[in-house]
Amino acid sequence: MPLLKPLADHEMSPEARSVLDDIRATRRTDYVNDIWRVLAHDPRQLRITWENVKQVMGPGALDPLVKELVYIAVSALNNCGYCLHTHAAAARAKGMTDAMLHELMQVVTLASQTNRLAIGYQVELDARYRPEAGRKEET
Amino acid sequence: MPLLKPLADHEMSPEARSVLDDIRATRRTDYVNDIWRVLAHDPRQLRITWENVKQVMGPGALDPLVKELVYIAVSALNNCGYCLHTHAAAARAKGMTDAMLHELMQVVTLASQTNRLAIGYQVELDARYRPEAGRKEET
Amino acid sequence: MPLLKPLADHEMSPEARSVLDDIRATRRTDYVNDIWRVLAHDPRQLRITWENVKQVMGPGALDPLVKELVYIAVSALNNCGYCLHTHAAAARAKGMTDAMLHELMQVVTLASQTNRLAIGYQVELDARYRPEAGRKEET
Amino acid sequence: MPLLKPLADHEMSPEARSVLDDIRATRRTDYVNDIWRVLAHDPRQLRITWENVKQVMGPGALDPLVKELVYIAVSALNNCGYCLHTHAAAARAKGMTDAMLHELMQVVTLASQTNRLAIGYQVELDARYRPEAGRKEET
Amino acid sequence: MPLLKPLADHEMSPEARSVLDDIRATRRTDYVNDIWRVLAHDPRQLRITWENVKQVMGPGALDPLVKELVYIAVSALNNCGYCLHTHAAAARAKGMTDAMLHELMQVVTLASQTNRLAIGYQVELDARYRPEAGRKEET
Amino acid sequence: MPLLKPLADHEMSPEARSVLDDIRATRRTDYVNDIWRVLAHDPRQLRITWENVKQVMGPGALDPLVKELVYIAVSALNNCGYCLHTHAAAARAKGMTDAMLHELMQVVTLASQTNRLAIGYQVELDARYRPEAGRKEET
Repeated sequence: MPLLKPLADHEMSPEARSVLDDIRATRRTDYVNDIWRVLAHDPRQLRITWENVKQVMGPGALDPLVKELVYIAVSALNNCGYCLHTHAAAARAKGMTDAMLHELMQVVTLASQTNRLAIGYQVELDARYRPEAGRKEET
Repeated sequence: MPLLKPLADHEMSPEARSVLDDIRATRRTDYVNDIWRVLAHDPRQLRITWENVKQVMGPGALDPLVKELVYIAVSALNNCGYCLHTHAAAARAKGMTDAMLHELMQVVTLASQTNRLAIGYQVELDARYRPEAGRKEET
Repeated sequence: MPLLKPLADHEMSPEARSVLDDIRATRRTDYVNDIWRVLAHDPRQLRITWENVKQVMGPGALDPLVKELVYIAVSALNNCGYCLHTHAAAARAKGMTDAMLHELMQVVTLASQTNRLAIGYQVELDARYRPEAGRKEET
Repeated sequence: MPLLKPLADHEMSPEARSVLDDIRATRRTDYVNDIWRVLAHDPRQLRITWENVKQVMGPGALDPLVKELVYIAVSALNNCGYCLHTHAAAARAKGMTDAMLHELMQVVTLASQTNRLAIGYQVELDARYRPEAGRKEET
Repeated sequence: MPLLKPLADHEMSPEARSVLDDIRATRRTDYVNDIWRVLAHDPRQLRITWENVKQVMGPGALDPLVKELVYIAVSALNNCGYCLHTHAAAARAKGMTDAMLHELMQVVTLASQTNRLAIGYQVELDARYRPEAGRKEET
Repeated sequence: MPLLKPLADHEMSPEARSVLDDIRATRRTDYVNDIWRVLAHDPRQLRITWENVKQVMGPGALDPLVKELVYIAVSALNNCGYCLHTHAAAARAKGMTDAMLHELMQVVTLASQTNRLAIGYQVELDARYRPEAGRKEET
């Protein structure tokens, strides 16, 4: 159960309303996720967060689908069920197949596993990766 | 400082040696990261881990570079410096530019930020994302 | 669903009962949260935990409400829904307004965001913050 | 060692330079932390992050020192050494005493401990904290 | 609600079926946990994961019950309710009593607490634990 | 570098001194880890923490070595290098062999891996593990 209830359009301030209108226009859908309706309790926070999402998840150096995959990976690490479900839906809409989802989870779990080994054994960085060594070929 | 010292080739068992040979052949380089030399203390663990890495990071439904980016994202979440440095090198070798690294970090930090909001406010999943509702358009 | 069921007063040992009596007296309420009723399965653990809570959350160098805010911040990071709900209630009873809750969440998410950047880029500590440099003005 | 080197003023773009000027003006100091010099590799990210920091850490519903304490708590949870050192310095400049730092750490560790108990035993939320029950007195 | 539905035996591929048969034979039970039925969407991942579980949780240098206790500790840290419930059941079947579960949770919460102190105060490793010092008696 | 410097015996209060004396007597060694010397800045926190460590890590339902192994597992998850090194030393003194350390790390990484899968796919608890189902055989 949520700490704050999601606000319906008529319950929020005009400033919050205008952010929701921008979400609808940008995403070309009438539906607005409940996370935005919770954030609408504080219109300033709502606006900052949405501007950040719009800018970071928009066109850039990485493919939009790749960004959604990274987002899902982070959400799996943070144990955020809400984020996993909503971004899995967004990723499917951008072309994620079940095979891609499976492989994504495999990479996430592999990295969690090998991260634990490097941390657990306190492995020190190889000399060749240190800045003074310059960058070498892949290893 | 490491809990166990990385083993030189002549200090490890023949079984561990053969795994390192496979790493060299698969990656087409003579250099083998210290994490493998630490794992070499237990040849069975070394072999299991390497087989898993080889299979998961090899060809599949996702692009190899995308997998490295996801790996870096997980390493940033797990605060694994060793993993960040070695996989940033691997990702650069597969084509990651500085602009891509910056955008990757932006997605990771955005997801960490919005994950915290969804978790902190304990936002419940919108009805439309629940299985009984069927899948709808992106939101 | 819990691993162990919360015990009613008549189901617990006299030693556990006496801890619950102290919780009631200290908090001036008849109601005792279920976490204490779960811990009551092991009276020694119940007593240690309660003594610690009573001492740390009681009067000291920090304002009691500030401590509740820090507690909520930690609970948001640990993704503990139980802790978020019970301590949000405690914080409201000590004067937390909705505006303060919103700003708290903004600080938590900002710190999560910038922590990720410092970790992800493996930023090293500026020379001026190192002990040998002495402490300088705020930066 | 960092993934990207901190840029000196003359190495960064005019857009990044102007953000650093605003940091200097806002904080009334010539010194700019290395995290900003790392972010300067991507002026857009630098600007977004700084605008967010300036707004969230500025005047609002919570006392500026309280915000620094929450920031330190999050950094301790995230194991971010860079963040702990720089924000401990900022908090001291805003009035944090050693006694307050000790008590802050006690609250952080207490919350970590009791969070683990609530999570480990999978304690379910008491009926009285559920939305349909309405809000009651502190417990 | 799950991202992917657990598959019944007749819905999965023959390769996945054969892994489930091995799980049943190894554990001497007809019941197979839903996690395996979710992984069955990708038979390769199912097989890798099961081979790893069978090998790591099987006979070795540590007692099987000790391994289950460590597994539960990790699950409590990762906030994985599914993992806590299924492995608490497995641990009880291997002899875990309620007293052992309580003491396990106490060690987990103690370690969480003292870890936070060491991290929060950024305590540096004592000289005697550094490799060049050689190993000394317990401290 | 630490936020607070470890105190020498002559720099701490008599109350803190007496806690260190008890650590020496309980552990039968003259050496006291630096974490205690950092906590000595706040004698009350020092005493609470030590009493808790002494009680939880002392004789009980679990073998002392098992407790050290769980402690190491938690430290690997929390990425606490200080804790890993000091408790690996303590565990070796209580009989941990290299083979046991390797197997411990395998269990920790396996649990991290399978936890991520259960979380990532948001697997729901099987009906048979729910309280109303009663407890069944191992699965």
